Amino acid sequence: MKPPIDKLVNNLVIVGAGLIGASLAGAVRARGLAANVVAVGRGRENLDTALSRQLVDSVSQSLEPALVDADMIVLAAPVDTCVALLGSVAKAAPPHATISDAGSVKGPIAAAALREGIAARFVGAHPMAGDTNTGAAAARVDLFEGATTVLTPAAAEARHVQVVTDLWKGVGAKVVSMSANEHDARVARSSHLPQMWSYALAAALSETSSATASTQEIYALAGNGLRDCTRLAGSDAAMWKAIANENKQELLAAMAELDVIWTQLTSAIENDDAAALESIIDSAQRFRKGLESA
Amino acid sequence: MKPPIDKLVNNLVIVGAGLIGASLAGAVRARGLAANVVAVGRGRENLDTALSRQLVDSVSQSLEPALVDADMIVLAAPVDTCVALLGSVAKAAPPHATISDAGSVKGPIAAAALREGIAARFVGAHPMAGDTNTGAAAARVDLFEGATTVLTPAAAEARHVQVVTDLWKGVGAKVVSMSANEHDARVARSSHLPQMWSYALAAALSETSSATASTQEIYALAGNGLRDCTRLAGSDAAMWKAIANENKQELLAAMAELDVIWTQLTSAIENDDAAALESIIDSAQRFRKGLESA
Repeated sequence: MKPPIDKLVNNLVIVGAGLIGASLAGAVRARGLAANVVAVGRGRENLDTALSRQLVDSVSQSLEPALVDADMIVLAAPVDTCVALLGSVAKAAPPHATISDAGSVKGPIAAAALREGIAARFVGAHPMAGDTNTGAAAARVDLFEGATTVLTPAAAEARHVQVVTDLWKGVGAKVVSMSANEHDARVARSSHLPQMWSYALAAALSETSSATASTQEIYALAGNGLRDCTRLAGSDAAMWKAIANENKQELLAAMAELDVIWTQLTSAIENDDAAALESIIDSAQRFRKGLESA
Repeated sequence: MKPPIDKLVNNLVIVGAGLIGASLAGAVRARGLAANVVAVGRGRENLDTALSRQLVDSVSQSLEPALVDADMIVLAAPVDTCVALLGSVAKAAPPHATISDAGSVKGPIAAAALREGIAARFVGAHPMAGDTNTGAAAARVDLFEGATTVLTPAAAEARHVQVVTDLWKGVGAKVVSMSANEHDARVARSSHLPQMWSYALAAALSETSSATASTQEIYALAGNGLRDCTRLAGSDAAMWKAIANENKQELLAAMAELDVIWTQLTSAIENDDAAALESIIDSAQRFRKGLESA
């Protein structure tokens, strides 16, 4: 089915009406990129919120019926749920439909697409945007403006890659392409490692583990530094448990790299090794300086 | 010597014309808290900058002559330098002068004050304010507005405690008191630990150590999370080397507490232990939530 003039796609089905799914739906509607936007979800709450906020045209709690007329499907559930759903989506989706996702890990879903025989029309996507608030209530139609979206097209046909590219550019994102493995290795370090780093710091300072200084005493002396370092620690547990599981190997490798430096840093302080401490600080400052001007 | 009416102190000498010293000097002048503000420093650059920015009335590269007429002396050099200078200050300062400092570690300087026989007139202070930029060029007369300043009066006489309290309240800070040991244990966790953790993260991601994903590739996928987590990694090396050294025992204890959690987190991911991962995330979220409402 050809989309109406000016529309990128006729019938867009977004599976998952949380922060990312509802924001994408709303952004697509606000920009008029699809003739019809349907959100599919298990729970009523996000669906009702998305409807009442007019982020979607309609909603459905059943996956298969919603897919019958789909021209494009975007899975925007937690990454493990996306992988688990892809088989059903592959069976129920019309043969012409483009299938994509918005998950933070790309290897397992790419492998699932291959396994389900939909590699020619599956284009993985990862919009690098988010918020520590979750759900359709936190959705924003400008969430993807200026954000980078990584596409991992792998074996997908050009027309499917084009429509997914146009969708993300249409909602204001900057689109880059790479392999699923490259993506997973890089985000393990740019995103998943800092997340685990922040959880660990906050947990170490929480009342369950800190004996010498109480949490209230730490709060009383907290400055912007501690606030910056623990901002990510407020992030959604379900989402991050799934990411840690799906990107386990790369994340563990990145954590091991940090552990090496942490051990060196601890030894440097323990042994009054000013040169070793200076070398780690130099390296850290160089990274930060590069990030600031990147 | 009695200060003029409306002045807190007549002749204030600040040793060190970096970010903290020059900001304090400028704030005191802007609020008219002292009749005369002198900055003492080894290098010309900060002194010239402080003079040309009119943050001080006069400057000196010699410590002893500058102290002859001092009514109050604030050491605002790196913490190890303050400890090293305290003996000379104790000898050269007039007997009535209040002696204080602005360092981030309070135990060693309190011990030095006791050793030098000036415990009755030494009031340790730590303004919890800063910037990743350093030197008199980065000084701001509003740097301490709304910031917490910790006083560690120990055995100081009430009139000395009062003048130091009034000085910091006068420049807009909120003043709290505790023992030097309490201070050092708490800032080890609220400030020094996040600093070292941030250095370690940034160093681990720097080009010297990351093999799978290059630094440029990490920059390309960096979001606000990574920026927040590595902001402290731009902080001054000399200052932090001194702090790590002076607060070594408490910092190492805090680093060991974090290391326990980091090892648990790594194991939880390695062993797909969802309950253990959830428990760490719960604890982290609780800390963060408390910090947000503190």
